[in-house]
Amino acid sequence: MFDWTSLASRALLLLILVYSSSFMFSSKKWSPKGLHVYITGGSQGLGLALAKLVARKGAHVSIVARTQSKLDDALKELEANRQSPDQVFKAFSFSLDTAKESAAALQAASDAHGGKVPDAVFACAGAAKPMYLLEMQPEDLSSGMTNGYWIQAWSAFAAAKQMVRENKKGKIVLVSSTLGYMSLIGYSSYSPAKHALRGLADSLHSELMLYGIDTHIFFPPTMYTPGFEEENKTKPAITRTIESADEGLTAEQAAAGLLSGVEKGHAHITADLITSLFRASTRGCAPRSNAALDFVLDLVALVGIPIWRRSVDKQVLAHRAEHREYLRTKGLVD
Amino acid sequence: MFDWTSLASRALLLLILVYSSSFMFSSKKWSPKGLHVYITGGSQGLGLALAKLVARKGAHVSIVARTQSKLDDALKELEANRQSPDQVFKAFSFSLDTAKESAAALQAASDAHGGKVPDAVFACAGAAKPMYLLEMQPEDLSSGMTNGYWIQAWSAFAAAKQMVRENKKGKIVLVSSTLGYMSLIGYSSYSPAKHALRGLADSLHSELMLYGIDTHIFFPPTMYTPGFEEENKTKPAITRTIESADEGLTAEQAAAGLLSGVEKGHAHITADLITSLFRASTRGCAPRSNAALDFVLDLVALVGIPIWRRSVDKQVLAHRAEHREYLRTKGLVD
Repeated sequence: MFDWTSLASRALLLLILVYSSSFMFSSKKWSPKGLHVYITGGSQGLGLALAKLVARKGAHVSIVARTQSKLDDALKELEANRQSPDQVFKAFSFSLDTAKESAAALQAASDAHGGKVPDAVFACAGAAKPMYLLEMQPEDLSSGMTNGYWIQAWSAFAAAKQMVRENKKGKIVLVSSTLGYMSLIGYSSYSPAKHALRGLADSLHSELMLYGIDTHIFFPPTMYTPGFEEENKTKPAITRTIESADEGLTAEQAAAGLLSGVEKGHAHITADLITSLFRASTRGCAPRSNAALDFVLDLVALVGIPIWRRSVDKQVLAHRAEHREYLRTKGLVD
Repeated sequence: MFDWTSLASRALLLLILVYSSSFMFSSKKWSPKGLHVYITGGSQGLGLALAKLVARKGAHVSIVARTQSKLDDALKELEANRQSPDQVFKAFSFSLDTAKESAAALQAASDAHGGKVPDAVFACAGAAKPMYLLEMQPEDLSSGMTNGYWIQAWSAFAAAKQMVRENKKGKIVLVSSTLGYMSLIGYSSYSPAKHALRGLADSLHSELMLYGIDTHIFFPPTMYTPGFEEENKTKPAITRTIESADEGLTAEQAAAGLLSGVEKGHAHITADLITSLFRASTRGCAPRSNAALDFVLDLVALVGIPIWRRSVDKQVLAHRAEHREYLRTKGLVD
């Protein structure tokens, strides 16, 4: 019995191998050396780590963030990573949460390079404010979308248009999250924004190939950054408990993973095992980076993720009485 | 050789069977009979088809939409599906695209039932306006999010809060799209919104189990509705070509698929084969409806979707010269 599965599995494996080999030999490595790399959220966390990394690789770097003092400090850190006197490092203070501000920031950085649009735009800006839906005002839900989606989408929008006008075969890189592939209690303002970024990236990937522009999207797990400390201030206790088993990345590890994925030309980039399992099992029609590996990850996810999910559901349900009491003390229920 | 795969596949199959059986025997069927069902977008298309369906099943129905004349016509259609003189059918004219309007609409419908929140809230309102990113103004991108996401998210937000306050173990049902699982050229304003709905649904599913509230999300393919005719007015030619092979559903077929999924308690609901393939291969940690079937769908998707994707990419790339010419005639490039 079960001989059909044996036969089917062999045939499938063969298919996968043949299929994946066609990917493995087609990669030309991209390098930021000598290029103008534009990084939003570049004054701290992932953005700053990435800025330093591409500076060490010989790129011209423009960083954008809101706070001038943080930008000044970041520029000093960039200088410490300078490889050549020719490299241009600039910082620009913009808020980025409207189309207008994002276009103006990109224009300012372009002006510093003879009016030419940057070669690569990394949208690393963003913030999360996890909390219970019951505690949210409508502004909490909408600012989740602004700080998780629009703050990046507007940069991609401005960059794509300008790249096409200049016939620049550039790169646009968005930064989602593990929570762009899945979600859990506490993230109803953040996870929709990170899912939306994935939808935008997949749309742009399909559309911008018309112009030779590459679109990438990165899905980092928990990163130990100033943003993480900020989001912990509002994070529900149950969410923190569920996440306590996660191994996060430092900003430097995440930046290295992101850049490596972009260099290899991966459309969806992950840098840790857990998110890679979600990537493989949430792939849809996203272009694959390594079909054979993704197949194995998908099988692991097939068995592992439902088990994980049940344990999370159990934890949530076990939290019910405590949660009712919490809502009562907050005056949210009678 | 390959004996390990044979062994592994047998072990895996056994696991899957054991695992899936635990789902198959746990389903109690939900029924709308005698319940108050609230349907946004209920004056036409999917929303109206669903309203008539639950009316035939004996529900009290409240429909919400913007245009009073369409609501009046829809009420007449509802009357034709009445099963008992006790059923209450009401229509409410609201725009739904702000938190305030959505909350007011829900309150109006609740007021008609002694101030009690509806037992089930189906957020069917929404619209798409597919177009090239290059042709968009910032307002096109942001109204994509309003008409694809907020118009549903605000109803879910208001309903969840009210259900918790009343300790109502109700149902919240969102309507995404196949484009909530994947995307392609032309949908950069719509697909992010539909992905965001999935993120919201998965967040709410995890969080609202604290209160015994069920969250469901439906992913319909192309539906032959007034909305479809509207979106075809701006849809790029290449998008239309790629989609020409799709088999869509009528509003009635989609409504039947949606209701059947809700009755069975499925978290992610699909009603056609193609979207089911995307569901299985974009499942992440979404609760499964049928693990064994989903496994088979995932394997089919594993081989089939990359092949489909390549053909789409080829079509997009072949369209390049024609597209440049189009942009030129529109004055968007020199």
